[in-house]
Amino acid sequence: MELREKEYEQLAEKMKSSTETYHGPLLHVYHDRVILPNGHESGRDYIKHLGAVCVVPVTEDGEVIIERQYRYPLDMVITEIPAGKLDSPEEDRLSAAKRELEEETGYTAGRWIDMGDFFPAVAYSTERISMYLALDLKQGERHLDADEFLNIEKQPLETLVNQVMNGEIVDIKTQASILKAARILGV
Amino acid sequence: MELREKEYEQLAEKMKSSTETYHGPLLHVYHDRVILPNGHESGRDYIKHLGAVCVVPVTEDGEVIIERQYRYPLDMVITEIPAGKLDSPEEDRLSAAKRELEEETGYTAGRWIDMGDFFPAVAYSTERISMYLALDLKQGERHLDADEFLNIEKQPLETLVNQVMNGEIVDIKTQASILKAARILGV
Repeated sequence: MELREKEYEQLAEKMKSSTETYHGPLLHVYHDRVILPNGHESGRDYIKHLGAVCVVPVTEDGEVIIERQYRYPLDMVITEIPAGKLDSPEEDRLSAAKRELEEETGYTAGRWIDMGDFFPAVAYSTERISMYLALDLKQGERHLDADEFLNIEKQPLETLVNQVMNGEIVDIKTQASILKAARILGV
Repeated sequence: MELREKEYEQLAEKMKSSTETYHGPLLHVYHDRVILPNGHESGRDYIKHLGAVCVVPVTEDGEVIIERQYRYPLDMVITEIPAGKLDSPEEDRLSAAKRELEEETGYTAGRWIDMGDFFPAVAYSTERISMYLALDLKQGERHLDADEFLNIEKQPLETLVNQVMNGEIVDIKTQASILKAARILGV
């Protein structure tokens, strides 16, 4: 622990000034001036993000509820696990995961396993995403926003692991969450 | 394949206009107006990114060369595998991986295994990162940029897998790449 504090002192950068350079519907972009460990001044561009959650919902038959969704920056329809942004930075993350799962897929889960958090872009975003494994699923009705479009499919967890390993699944939260779930469930 | 083409037609959004809203040292931010599948108009904020590479360098003893690096948006020193941006979108990705590994750690590798690509933030970034497994390592001298600061450590692959599973490793490229490498190497 003491070693880690020393490391922080050795490597940390100090903020000199912070400016919001773009405030859009989704992205809040900042440019900060910072002092590097060697005393030089430098700039840091980054996004402030509310945070998000993602869920691997697995049925009793070992199938995963996944989504096929169009992503504009990639101009591709890709395979993703259910996920969504927090409504506010203070929102309880498990509650958000339950909401997103039900809204997007119609499923609710009787058992939730916390699979930990991750940062998707440590160089340029504050976004923190919490991963959950959802078990004991019960199917209901999904209720998407009027302007939300995505298809729901079911795939065996093993098939998805293979698609992660062979590069067919390209979304990183899906890659990491599927591999974590596979380790936990022994697939 | 035909099914997937139909899916694209069903879900894709059409660009109406594109505006660069911020051009910083690192981030190029765009706001596009798009037509949704239901004919409504909406906005899409996203970042255009050159692309990047990351490397899991594993020694003959099963140890991984990792970095401890300060990340300003998180205000944390975190564990990461060696990684870096492309010099240009056209740069050969394997060459970039070789360069980043040598610059940051001093190591070169005799054997490179392509572990596929991923997108870290499909909702708001075009960034595509290629993952490599580097074997048959040879230690040399590292040569960081003048304003680059990071510490190098060695950890058994098994220890890193445990740190991914228990949430100690929070960087997503490191989580996914370590779990992929572990599956490939049977750890």
